[in-house]
Amino acid sequence: MSFELRDRDLLGRIGRLRTKGGEVETPAFMPVVNPLLQTLPPRRMRKEFGCDIVITNSYILRRQFGDVPGLEIHGLLDYDGVIMTDSGAYQILVYGSVEVTQPEIIDFQKAIGSDIAVILDIPTGWDVPRSDVEYTVEETLRRAEAAIPLIEGSEALWVGPVQGGRHLDLVARSARLVGELPYDVHALGSPTEVMERYMYPVLVDMAMTAKLNLPTERPLHLFGAGHPMVFAMSVAMGYDLFDSAAYALYAKDDRYMTSRGTTQLQDLQYLPCSCPVCRSHTVEDLKAMPRGERQRSLAEHNLYATVTEMDVVKQAIAEGRLWDLVEARAKGHPQMTSALKRLSAYKEHLERGSHGFKGRGVFYHDYHSLAKPEVTRHARRLIENYGRPEGKTTLLLVPAPPEKPFNTYPGYLRLREGLQPKLCEVHVCFVAAPYGVVPESLAETYPLSQYEVAEPLDHETQMFTVENAVEYVEASGHEKVVLVRGGDPFFDMLEEALRKSMPSLPVLRPENLWERETGEQALRLL
Amino acid sequence: MSFELRDRDLLGRIGRLRTKGGEVETPAFMPVVNPLLQTLPPRRMRKEFGCDIVITNSYILRRQFGDVPGLEIHGLLDYDGVIMTDSGAYQILVYGSVEVTQPEIIDFQKAIGSDIAVILDIPTGWDVPRSDVEYTVEETLRRAEAAIPLIEGSEALWVGPVQGGRHLDLVARSARLVGELPYDVHALGSPTEVMERYMYPVLVDMAMTAKLNLPTERPLHLFGAGHPMVFAMSVAMGYDLFDSAAYALYAKDDRYMTSRGTTQLQDLQYLPCSCPVCRSHTVEDLKAMPRGERQRSLAEHNLYATVTEMDVVKQAIAEGRLWDLVEARAKGHPQMTSALKRLSAYKEHLERGSHGFKGRGVFYHDYHSLAKPEVTRHARRLIENYGRPEGKTTLLLVPAPPEKPFNTYPGYLRLREGLQPKLCEVHVCFVAAPYGVVPESLAETYPLSQYEVAEPLDHETQMFTVENAVEYVEASGHEKVVLVRGGDPFFDMLEEALRKSMPSLPVLRPENLWERETGEQALRLL
Repeated sequence: MSFELRDRDLLGRIGRLRTKGGEVETPAFMPVVNPLLQTLPPRRMRKEFGCDIVITNSYILRRQFGDVPGLEIHGLLDYDGVIMTDSGAYQILVYGSVEVTQPEIIDFQKAIGSDIAVILDIPTGWDVPRSDVEYTVEETLRRAEAAIPLIEGSEALWVGPVQGGRHLDLVARSARLVGELPYDVHALGSPTEVMERYMYPVLVDMAMTAKLNLPTERPLHLFGAGHPMVFAMSVAMGYDLFDSAAYALYAKDDRYMTSRGTTQLQDLQYLPCSCPVCRSHTVEDLKAMPRGERQRSLAEHNLYATVTEMDVVKQAIAEGRLWDLVEARAKGHPQMTSALKRLSAYKEHLERGSHGFKGRGVFYHDYHSLAKPEVTRHARRLIENYGRPEGKTTLLLVPAPPEKPFNTYPGYLRLREGLQPKLCEVHVCFVAAPYGVVPESLAETYPLSQYEVAEPLDHETQMFTVENAVEYVEASGHEKVVLVRGGDPFFDMLEEALRKSMPSLPVLRPENLWERETGEQALRLL
Repeated sequence: MSFELRDRDLLGRIGRLRTKGGEVETPAFMPVVNPLLQTLPPRRMRKEFGCDIVITNSYILRRQFGDVPGLEIHGLLDYDGVIMTDSGAYQILVYGSVEVTQPEIIDFQKAIGSDIAVILDIPTGWDVPRSDVEYTVEETLRRAEAAIPLIEGSEALWVGPVQGGRHLDLVARSARLVGELPYDVHALGSPTEVMERYMYPVLVDMAMTAKLNLPTERPLHLFGAGHPMVFAMSVAMGYDLFDSAAYALYAKDDRYMTSRGTTQLQDLQYLPCSCPVCRSHTVEDLKAMPRGERQRSLAEHNLYATVTEMDVVKQAIAEGRLWDLVEARAKGHPQMTSALKRLSAYKEHLERGSHGFKGRGVFYHDYHSLAKPEVTRHARRLIENYGRPEGKTTLLLVPAPPEKPFNTYPGYLRLREGLQPKLCEVHVCFVAAPYGVVPESLAETYPLSQYEVAEPLDHETQMFTVENAVEYVEASGHEKVVLVRGGDPFFDMLEEALRKSMPSLPVLRPENLWERETGEQALRLL
């Protein structure tokens, strides 16, 4: 296996990708290196920026140098890390066609010693009629199949791209079929325009559709993604490799990148960064530099911002806090928040990707946090595994005490004493946002013993909690529900929702407005 | 004037504080320098970290050196920036009393040449009975008055502290009365424990109460605030100076600070930072260092993270995006999000602090963005200045077109054509989240022409929009309201809310579910 997973969070993962040119840790950002015009020498990128992998364009190289025998990419770039080469597909997107055949560019990439190489796929592009999209998908698939005999025996890792643009059914087909072929790496083609137009919700649907239809164990590349603002979300969707020339292109336009967005140099009054460029210059220094030097300095800053964000993302995976980071980065632009909402709809998939949790306290900031895998998993397992315990016909719903674990809180212990004689027939659950229902027997397990919710709860979180509770009651088959009425704001909502969803189920509730601690009246209703 | 404001956003500001030891730009973080034990030499702090101001403890100095004639603080610390000295109040908090009188420590601070000096106030502390809190407030006020003749003619700037802890009425009294005395700087005393316990919502109430009761033009210091996570919010509340030893104390406990929170070194697998320490070491390097070296390196990283965040905050002020930053930082901990909600309740005060906007597109991410001054100001001005134009008896509410400015959208222009004959009596407003109502005549003005809202809208934003619209209709005195029914999700809510709030107002709405573009039916209802 060339790809080994070491850690996971959501669909994101930390992995080791072995290539003939060396190992790379993923998620990894590959700066685009223009072989003919180097803003920063690749050797420096590795030494100073920690870039163990770069990408360059084999089509441009071949046009420049032709099929020179002995041409070797690592020597040419003076770079001893891993080199991926693109095939000219981007040039097809921009110019409509290229002066090379797929067998020629595959042979060329083999000859120059690319470590990761790409077939000559046909990018879908943007704003094209569906029939054209269908052509790019089918032709890319045809080429992916045709390439198999050509790449057999090659030492490089080969990339099978996915096309389809915003036509999700075609993305799904493209991913499913190319995933059946023996490629080492997959890639989602040409979302660049989607990103340039800030259409992040569209990107989420494209990226998730590709991801969910590809073999999950293969590394996945997002072509052209290079803004640090989108890394956390893209990694959370299961993408491992990213490439872009944005760090240099933005610098050319005097644009300064941060994980929160982009600022024009002229709008900067401070350098909000601690990278070597920003610590050794004032903003006035930068503005006063001659154009060439300024572009180089901005490119360096942009690359620092880019590679540092990847470390932020990896550390978030290590801590099991990737979703918190995605939430924070979504504040960079309203379209990022829209994308967060879109991604939240895939929460069941995000949960399935999260293999085991890190044992840290889980944070629920607001309704965006409801997509966290911990809460999705709890709701699912509750219904699958913890229905109604044998013999317990009555469900007693107790407001969550103010301290965790709930079952050892003194006020609750007093209620439990009075409950003692009935315990064989009464199933005690706490009603706790955002989980819904927490059975007493699980109150000391992770994450139910260790989480924090921002208060006051927003409407969405209240509704979510009530819905989760109702779903559990629907599935559990209790004969009677008794609510220990408390100050929790959603107890009225809960009662109403239970009566509405199960009109024939007896739902009893004491008159006394607040008797959380002893629950005497509730006990009389049992 | 020793304090000059250069820029503002919310209650936050960028200012220039002139002292006898030099000028300092605010907001500024002052690292606490222990005169007897320097983790980092103050000279290096200035040169490498850009700290133009530090704080040290005059009480400790006096105990160590006594009243040595000629003792001068800048020479002693080998530091040529601005030096603030604390008075021993912190030691009163920790040890209950100090072996110095107020006149003695005031004289000492004058003698050693402090640039900013503090009277000997009595910190309130935490979890103390109200009678004790009252004592600390009254005694601090008494001392503040008694100090006036002692500090008269002093070249230093003098700080008049505010006490009261979480007793907001006492904080208000303390602030109001000390604000009447001729101090140069004010400070909110001892919120340290509140911050250590993550009680950020309490901090917001304390900090806002002090701020709103003090002369706004004087610089304001938040004692003991040194975690980068709280800077954006604290600056947004109008605080200008911050001091803390946290950068060094956290390092002692192997804690690594970022603007998103704190991580134990042992839990770091990556260094999510681009500061000189983190770029020149791997996390394994740091973990393997001898204790002393490790502490020094961590203290350096922590100080870089701290001062860099202050630049992030200042740049956010320059861009008019401080609230976006506050929202992003609130994702660091649920208690920070709770604090954000608490702060949102002060939105009228935040709006009054924001003098003019920066002309950038305004971002509305979710309901947290509803506290932005742009939307508060629009709602207020709409009612104050743009009631019902002369002669226009009918209000026509049109769904906001999908593009801005609303009044030049082709679909709307078609509707307007049909409207032409009635324009003398019809007042046209767009219904647009989150503003509520946008009169046609304002559609091309900032920020109504230039904002973005994340979609789909959350429940809170829908409700807020409807409430703003209803408030306007209540205040405007139209005789009739006609709704041009559209696909906007809140048009049903709006109709219901209008009927509920003004049962006798005719609210007309066409039958046709979707006729946004021509609005023919609506026109017939006019």
